[in-house]
Amino acid sequence: MRVGARSKLPKFPSREKIEKFIADNRLKTPYLIVDLDVVEHNYKTLRATLPVADVFYAVKANPAPEVIKRLVKLGSHFDVASPAEVELALEAGAKPEMISLGNTIKKEEDIKWAYDYGVRMFAFDSEAELQKLARSAPGSKVFCRLLVSCEGADWPLSRKFGCEVDMARDLLIKAKDLGLEPYGVSFHVGSQQTRVDQWGNALGQAAALFKALEGSGVKLQMINLGGGLPAHYTDSVSSVNSYSSAIMKALTKHFGADLPRIITEPGRSLVGDSGVLDAEIVLISKKSYADDETRWIYLDIGKFGGLAETLDEAIKYRIEPLGRKGATAPAIMAGPSCDSADILYEKFKYQMPLSLQVGDKLRFHSTGAYTASYASVGFNGFAPLPTYCI
Amino acid sequence: MRVGARSKLPKFPSREKIEKFIADNRLKTPYLIVDLDVVEHNYKTLRATLPVADVFYAVKANPAPEVIKRLVKLGSHFDVASPAEVELALEAGAKPEMISLGNTIKKEEDIKWAYDYGVRMFAFDSEAELQKLARSAPGSKVFCRLLVSCEGADWPLSRKFGCEVDMARDLLIKAKDLGLEPYGVSFHVGSQQTRVDQWGNALGQAAALFKALEGSGVKLQMINLGGGLPAHYTDSVSSVNSYSSAIMKALTKHFGADLPRIITEPGRSLVGDSGVLDAEIVLISKKSYADDETRWIYLDIGKFGGLAETLDEAIKYRIEPLGRKGATAPAIMAGPSCDSADILYEKFKYQMPLSLQVGDKLRFHSTGAYTASYASVGFNGFAPLPTYCI
Repeated sequence: MRVGARSKLPKFPSREKIEKFIADNRLKTPYLIVDLDVVEHNYKTLRATLPVADVFYAVKANPAPEVIKRLVKLGSHFDVASPAEVELALEAGAKPEMISLGNTIKKEEDIKWAYDYGVRMFAFDSEAELQKLARSAPGSKVFCRLLVSCEGADWPLSRKFGCEVDMARDLLIKAKDLGLEPYGVSFHVGSQQTRVDQWGNALGQAAALFKALEGSGVKLQMINLGGGLPAHYTDSVSSVNSYSSAIMKALTKHFGADLPRIITEPGRSLVGDSGVLDAEIVLISKKSYADDETRWIYLDIGKFGGLAETLDEAIKYRIEPLGRKGATAPAIMAGPSCDSADILYEKFKYQMPLSLQVGDKLRFHSTGAYTASYASVGFNGFAPLPTYCI
Repeated sequence: MRVGARSKLPKFPSREKIEKFIADNRLKTPYLIVDLDVVEHNYKTLRATLPVADVFYAVKANPAPEVIKRLVKLGSHFDVASPAEVELALEAGAKPEMISLGNTIKKEEDIKWAYDYGVRMFAFDSEAELQKLARSAPGSKVFCRLLVSCEGADWPLSRKFGCEVDMARDLLIKAKDLGLEPYGVSFHVGSQQTRVDQWGNALGQAAALFKALEGSGVKLQMINLGGGLPAHYTDSVSSVNSYSSAIMKALTKHFGADLPRIITEPGRSLVGDSGVLDAEIVLISKKSYADDETRWIYLDIGKFGGLAETLDEAIKYRIEPLGRKGATAPAIMAGPSCDSADILYEKFKYQMPLSLQVGDKLRFHSTGAYTASYASVGFNGFAPLPTYCI
């Protein structure tokens, strides 16, 4: 089916639509524009290439109400981190049974609050959390997060979340004893994961755990594949289709035809490519006469205004100098704050046109995820990044 | 004078005053409480030990209006980074002539805006910025930021700000040609600077520049020593007095009795020790049976809620487990968000009581600077850190 095949290609915001919106609203930089049609395209592509999986959108990636509303309309479920995100999802029209409270670190009063609103699916990775869930969310579906390798991820995870498999086994048995429903396991192979085979390794561990638990009278029903699918930054990445194929292959290898319920929690891969962020060049300068040709380019947005994922230059956005062409030279990019840590890219030298002037605009592509939500309340007096959904 | 000598000792918030405030207002964690009397004490101590210097409070360190109002009352000047911070200072009662726009990265419209409100002192470190100032703040006092070493600083600066001395010389001559007043130079030896002699090195460079410019018919009048004086974290630091003495000695060495106007821009050293931040323990857990005794302690505040300076574990706060004593063991500390980077301390292992329980409070001392102002707008749905000034 050619149409279906085409729909799996990445889609980026319509340039015409964006330019019209900027002009109509006389937007002043910096701002983030999110094209909801790209979010919809990405949701549908993921559903088409991995139909076996229910999609739980990771709200933290971009909590703009319009994004959530669009996804509600498409039938998405939601992975949330806090009571405020539960509220956001409910206000956008999500039903409580479509919500999973996926944070393994929750105050008991927050568990109770979510339970009272009808949320019945919760993550955990420790006995203390399980005890809270048993007391404040009795009978709920609970899933245990496993610690797995996230080698190959551009924004790798630490040991902060999850526990090792033998502990998970005991905890899932305990869950049943405590009157909870031991529903399944989750893992996360790291955000912006570049290796399509990483899910396979984790699924092997999960399958072994399923088998071991069955021997103890606990029948798990769900595997949560986490997030990790990439957006399109400077490095080329494999297609959603190739990730989906690798995941399906691993699922079949480890579970045969008898698949448990499969859940994914995409954030970056749903909303990342939907956004463009425009910044203005405030200053271009050099530090000394002896400096080579490298210019410092200072923008009206930096690490504290929404580009937090430039930390250690982890995420390298595609940056387009609007309206400037011709010969280029390397540049260091920095934000506007008086904080010396507010440098975006110094080791990685972007090639920028020599014709760039103060007042020119740089467009950061694929900035729909983990930008506006990271912005500071106003460090140095610079306002948080506004989001416009179109 | 014994009273004067005593007043140079560090002062911390009154425990009684804080406990009463928390109880009276039934505060829920996390929150930051700033004791304005400590800010006042620190201001007076700096004035007493370094009377030669005018104090320009670095508003970015803690932009709470109450802090600025108290400092206005004490006669402080203000170092601001943006139009919003100019506004904040003016609203708190500062006169425009008490304000220095110390950011070297400014939009020309923002320069114009500040100039229209009466601001007449501006920093620069490049020709492009100088041209903006000449056009939009004609006749203003301008000072050039020099690139100096910041070895020994716990939060060191990069090459983001400042230019080298020979470029500064040419720019200050140019400032005069452009109808600006070449007022002086500034430098910054790095925040939380532990070496009292670092100002001496920079002052040597500044003095040489003063002399060189005098030969070119430009008589500079001001040296801005920047910030860098420390607050009290886990490592012991030298007293304000010893910094002041080292600075005075260097000033005398390089300028003799004919001192230019001296300016300091303290942020951390004025407000850091004035704050306490209370967090609640949400979860205590281990990752595997094989783990050693190291616990993971998860709090209701993390890197994105106000503890951004724990990045790379740069700033190590004094952490007090409220109401728990006895045998201790090492712990890893992390924030509540679903972000794996949201770990506060992992390499540096705090010793925490084994008796700690979920629901207990940890008090982070000396958190008055660079905390609430760094908080995200609500990453993961966690509200920004509120500040209460008492």
